[in-house]
Amino acid sequence: MELQAPMQQLVHCLAGLPGIGEKTATRLALFLVNCPAEQARDLAGAIAQVRERIRLCSLCYNYTEQELCAICASAARDRRTVCVVETPGDVMSFERIGGYSGCYHVLHGSISPLDGIGPEQLRIRELLERISQGGIEEVILATNPTMNGNATAVYLAGRLQTSAVRVTRIAQGIQPGADIGYADQTTLKNALEWRRSMK
Amino acid sequence: MELQAPMQQLVHCLAGLPGIGEKTATRLALFLVNCPAEQARDLAGAIAQVRERIRLCSLCYNYTEQELCAICASAARDRRTVCVVETPGDVMSFERIGGYSGCYHVLHGSISPLDGIGPEQLRIRELLERISQGGIEEVILATNPTMNGNATAVYLAGRLQTSAVRVTRIAQGIQPGADIGYADQTTLKNALEWRRSMK
Repeated sequence: MELQAPMQQLVHCLAGLPGIGEKTATRLALFLVNCPAEQARDLAGAIAQVRERIRLCSLCYNYTEQELCAICASAARDRRTVCVVETPGDVMSFERIGGYSGCYHVLHGSISPLDGIGPEQLRIRELLERISQGGIEEVILATNPTMNGNATAVYLAGRLQTSAVRVTRIAQGIQPGADIGYADQTTLKNALEWRRSMK
Repeated sequence: MELQAPMQQLVHCLAGLPGIGEKTATRLALFLVNCPAEQARDLAGAIAQVRERIRLCSLCYNYTEQELCAICASAARDRRTVCVVETPGDVMSFERIGGYSGCYHVLHGSISPLDGIGPEQLRIRELLERISQGGIEEVILATNPTMNGNATAVYLAGRLQTSAVRVTRIAQGIQPGADIGYADQTTLKNALEWRRSMK
């Protein structure tokens, strides 16, 4: 049996989401055709709403409904420290740990020459402008510890070489709970390089 | 950081889908807010379309866009054999194997007293009516080999006791590739009970 055209279309759309394969997409489509009408309507509506109402914070480029995001607008946050991340999802990850009281800057990607993404395609110009306006004392480069993320951090550090701000990079090392015997060479090399004094 | 209200709503809706937890829902929402506008619009549209255009086949209660589903409408299918399944997804599973040329009847569930689902809540009356109209020679009971599925099969077999149609149940036994040493008691009991002659 061929799937009916609207079902095929829905499976196709669902399978376009990250981490959703053909089989999961089919299972979800079979659920959506048969769930309470309200549930299906709510989901379709929520997708439309998110596209309509979410925009980028004019200061840090995180997602927001307002001109400024909740973090940039908050009087409780320390504007002197800016944590530079690749995506709004990374902001959520840092916020979940709860201990960071500074602000953010979302680049919306990382430098990736193979994908044609250079500094101009990211919110780097906006970051440099923000820093040049003064008031920022430390920039924490929290791009991913990947080839592209590291390249982006190195690039930013270079651009900020002559600036007065302190530029730091989040630590790379062995993960808590990991076994040194199973760690790869890069991990151990980093763990040694980033070591710190204990007394 | 609290998620923005439209994002929270989308995560909530996505987490209501089967097999999608809070974390996957968040990942999908972050994708949907940032993917090409067309992709998000297509998905929302496909959900609406599927609810609008898909209905139940008036003969077998499988999903269809027409009065009759593609299987019931096909001249190539054998109308004398009806395979009774719990869900439209089960029809898809049987169609995938490709060797079955009969028709189907979708009950839309199984008898489940604990959930308040009795024979009246399923398409059982419609099945009995369909059989009473003649032309059907065999009814294959292909409900799941679960407590509820088995109960439904036993109930249907009882209702068809005095009918002229042949009533069969799909085989239960040990799965191909499984190890007898690891099989549970019910599986082995079934495998013995459903054994067949080899010469």
